[in-house]
Amino acid sequence: MLSSETKDEIFDLIGQTVTPRLSDQLRFVLEIDKLKTIIRQTPLLDISRRENDAEHSWHLAMMAMMLAEYAAPDVRLERVLRMVLIHDIVEIDAGDTFLYDATAEAGQEEREQKAADRLFGLLPKEQAVEFRSLWDEFEAHQSPDARFARTMDRMQPFLHNVFTGGHSWKHHGVTADQVQKRMAVIADGSTLLHGLVTRLIEESVARGFLLPSSSD
Amino acid sequence: MLSSETKDEIFDLIGQTVTPRLSDQLRFVLEIDKLKTIIRQTPLLDISRRENDAEHSWHLAMMAMMLAEYAAPDVRLERVLRMVLIHDIVEIDAGDTFLYDATAEAGQEEREQKAADRLFGLLPKEQAVEFRSLWDEFEAHQSPDARFARTMDRMQPFLHNVFTGGHSWKHHGVTADQVQKRMAVIADGSTLLHGLVTRLIEESVARGFLLPSSSD
Repeated sequence: MLSSETKDEIFDLIGQTVTPRLSDQLRFVLEIDKLKTIIRQTPLLDISRRENDAEHSWHLAMMAMMLAEYAAPDVRLERVLRMVLIHDIVEIDAGDTFLYDATAEAGQEEREQKAADRLFGLLPKEQAVEFRSLWDEFEAHQSPDARFARTMDRMQPFLHNVFTGGHSWKHHGVTADQVQKRMAVIADGSTLLHGLVTRLIEESVARGFLLPSSSD
Repeated sequence: MLSSETKDEIFDLIGQTVTPRLSDQLRFVLEIDKLKTIIRQTPLLDISRRENDAEHSWHLAMMAMMLAEYAAPDVRLERVLRMVLIHDIVEIDAGDTFLYDATAEAGQEEREQKAADRLFGLLPKEQAVEFRSLWDEFEAHQSPDARFARTMDRMQPFLHNVFTGGHSWKHHGVTADQVQKRMAVIADGSTLLHGLVTRLIEESVARGFLLPSSSD
């Protein structure tokens, strides 16, 4: 590995050869390589290992392209793609929080806001503002684009659970009512996809992939 | 792991609950999870391991967003994003070919065409045609969108080499003239970025990251 001094010398050279602006943009581009080392709970479908945030983000973008027809008519695919591609960047500093882990949620928002300040802050000013605002929009999940982006973000690990026989559900002792609760927001992005998820939750319980609701 | 019979039963259930069309789309979405297991020569910047095609594709999409201003004015970012996200899908069947390995190139095109037939063929007909055509456009690298997409695809491993002190260049004994030759196409996507790459090749030789040209 290069020392940080050597890296700085090369970024300075880029700034002198082209512009400091491009040097800052490439600093960001190289910094986010770290997203490839942030490990999620979701296993690959072959269960060989757990996936990382970078490949997860790629998978959401592919899903958004393939399933765009199920989104509300005013959803703009380009904005959804940009959102899902950047949505987990903050986890480089803040780490991944498992969807069914309530205790880990404490302090998560503060950690993520601080991470967003540092990471988007590497970019030239107006680009930092643009991408920070896009991430804020995703986090607020109020706009149609953000809702569809979140629908993809919830469906992907759900499908991986179903098609691995409930691999991480079993590992964490997750129950059907917990999954139903976490998947409810899918309906904001697509009622059709939410209907499918509801049916697959039933099927997962029937097949023993998922524990029944604790009240059952 | 689930048996393929069980998976087929679940896909059938999806077809009955919603439509066979959605079932086919989800078959594709889940099949391409395998891209996360196709390993490239490029190391992560921390040299902890080599990257895979899925996270590489994500990184190209991030680069395209951050560096879009350096593209020709008629380049459409949404199409570039779609192209870089799907550009390596065929390697699920055809495998990754190292940029500096001339012998592995034999048969590569035939393998990739066959892979494209199978993989895009999982999708509903008109979607298969749409994405196959987008991939064909990327491969032909004639359109402005395809040229900028390829510029990203060449720059990313180049930058990883520079910022790891020539990690995979050294491993494979690559020389400056080989890199210059492979990076020449960057100029089709952005003369400014090509100028930077040329300067960084010189710097890499000066710092001992890269062997001088064999004719030097």
